[in-house]
Amino acid sequence: MGEFDLIERYFWRRAGEGPHRAVIGNGDDCAVIAPTPGMQLAVSTDTLVEGRHFLSTVNPARLGHKALAVNLSDLAACGARPLAFTLALTLPRVDQDWLSDFSQGLLALADEHDCELIGGDTTAGPLAIGITVMGEVPAGHALLRSGAQAGDDIWVSGWPGEARLALEAFRGTLHPGLMPHTFDAVRMAMELPTPRVTLGQGLRGVATSAIDVSDGLLGDLGHILRRSRVGASLILDALPISAHLQERPSAEQLDCILAGGDDYELVFTSPPNQREAVRALEQQLGLLLTRIGRIEAEPGLRLWRGELDQWEGDPALKPVDNRWTSFDHFKGTP
Amino acid sequence: MGEFDLIERYFWRRAGEGPHRAVIGNGDDCAVIAPTPGMQLAVSTDTLVEGRHFLSTVNPARLGHKALAVNLSDLAACGARPLAFTLALTLPRVDQDWLSDFSQGLLALADEHDCELIGGDTTAGPLAIGITVMGEVPAGHALLRSGAQAGDDIWVSGWPGEARLALEAFRGTLHPGLMPHTFDAVRMAMELPTPRVTLGQGLRGVATSAIDVSDGLLGDLGHILRRSRVGASLILDALPISAHLQERPSAEQLDCILAGGDDYELVFTSPPNQREAVRALEQQLGLLLTRIGRIEAEPGLRLWRGELDQWEGDPALKPVDNRWTSFDHFKGTP
Repeated sequence: MGEFDLIERYFWRRAGEGPHRAVIGNGDDCAVIAPTPGMQLAVSTDTLVEGRHFLSTVNPARLGHKALAVNLSDLAACGARPLAFTLALTLPRVDQDWLSDFSQGLLALADEHDCELIGGDTTAGPLAIGITVMGEVPAGHALLRSGAQAGDDIWVSGWPGEARLALEAFRGTLHPGLMPHTFDAVRMAMELPTPRVTLGQGLRGVATSAIDVSDGLLGDLGHILRRSRVGASLILDALPISAHLQERPSAEQLDCILAGGDDYELVFTSPPNQREAVRALEQQLGLLLTRIGRIEAEPGLRLWRGELDQWEGDPALKPVDNRWTSFDHFKGTP
Repeated sequence: MGEFDLIERYFWRRAGEGPHRAVIGNGDDCAVIAPTPGMQLAVSTDTLVEGRHFLSTVNPARLGHKALAVNLSDLAACGARPLAFTLALTLPRVDQDWLSDFSQGLLALADEHDCELIGGDTTAGPLAIGITVMGEVPAGHALLRSGAQAGDDIWVSGWPGEARLALEAFRGTLHPGLMPHTFDAVRMAMELPTPRVTLGQGLRGVATSAIDVSDGLLGDLGHILRRSRVGASLILDALPISAHLQERPSAEQLDCILAGGDDYELVFTSPPNQREAVRALEQQLGLLLTRIGRIEAEPGLRLWRGELDQWEGDPALKPVDNRWTSFDHFKGTP
């Protein structure tokens, strides 16, 4: 099967299938889309490489889902509504079963977010999936990393850490190993992450900064601190610990939550007078939102044991050494 | 060096360097750009993989140029003005000399076309360069593959075929081989192609369809014919044969021009009453534009020896068998 047949068979949508927002869709030199007047365009790109970002044994439908999810997550972190994406697929061979499953997983998530595949490119080579996603956001209302202010609360969505637990299970580093039902559940967190797209849009006007947790909660929060030129204190006892992580040793819980990444939850900051708005979002979305610390003027990231809001000279707050560092693709594997 | 340092050192521009059109640039979850009111957004994506699209020995500055050039060429074929691009770079290792040269070649061409690098992603893995480019075009004025009409002229820009001649020289298939000065010249055509961005914009309102020649003149013209539901006749004697190709056997000349690709010239169609407008563009741009055939209602592509415009039953027109087929990434190398 040739390149053009491949794209047409597996990735083009027929009338009535999926969103059709492109003025000119797949199959010309460019796709042409018409942004809504008054909106700005948010753009992000992410590549997944076999052996680096996913295991060669992963179910291709889940891989299709995840490849788009990590990109939608970047739009979520900017508060943007998804519009369209392009797909650059490098394949070692044309495996029709693989392509069928991969495209189904990819396009199902795309449909869910009304995000149209508007362009693509296939190449023979080692398996890699490159996606560039485009969304729109009202002019001047994108959520940035640079807006955090001293005094803001720090929040995290969902139950971070499960994806890392799954990865360590695959690596065989966990002692004791996971129970089968736990393994199945955390594997879903790793392979089928939910991009927090609706949360991101709901946080426009509520949050002062946001980022998605791809490389680890501490590392990604660090990006907010640097770009906002502020520091932070986190209360480890306030962190949400999922039922599956609660089965694990406490050091492992913290490793997974603070340094895990790959969950694609959002970390965001907002002033204390927005707590009710955040709680309203939590109710509306049915998504746990947990306050885990606060932004401070003093640079650096401080970790504490103790109770949230017992900040000022409370002897019950005990400092904890930060032994977690950010994941970096060129320093080592996560 | 970590991923973030790498991106910042080699790919971020400082104030006063390069275009700054992004509202929010590199370094957040998304870049945010504001399209000009009334314009539509043209988007295209292309990946270059080592061993497939370029030789491992290629000069990295030229590789940086070419990776962006092939994407700008897609914007040119739509008549769009470049705005911004994202870069997904997969690298086997962090080679600072390579990155310095690559980024210089890439960003020099980007500056020339006022096209800003607004997002990026680096990954460890086999060398591959994925670019998604965005441009803008007045609403409803994009050049499409689907607009060719029976009676239109068929034109090609520049001197197609030299890139293929260079590739065959690298492969050692040419007998006799190339003279050194010829090799140097055609190698430039292969490694430093000029995307016809200004021509594409000039063709808005003049051309009825356009495509860039990446896979071979006949194959790419075939896309216009299929999408426009028309056929065509080409006059082989009308093809532009560059000085370097003129040194070669005539069968090789035709192979390179008709099936070569990788030159990123434009093939376009326009009605005969636009010939003066095309000639005016040719003068204005200092770029050869050659009329090589015509669009016909009868499906299929017919090749002839003889003189242009001697169409109607002229016995001097001799049919030629089409022994050239389109390049296809999964059917074989070009």
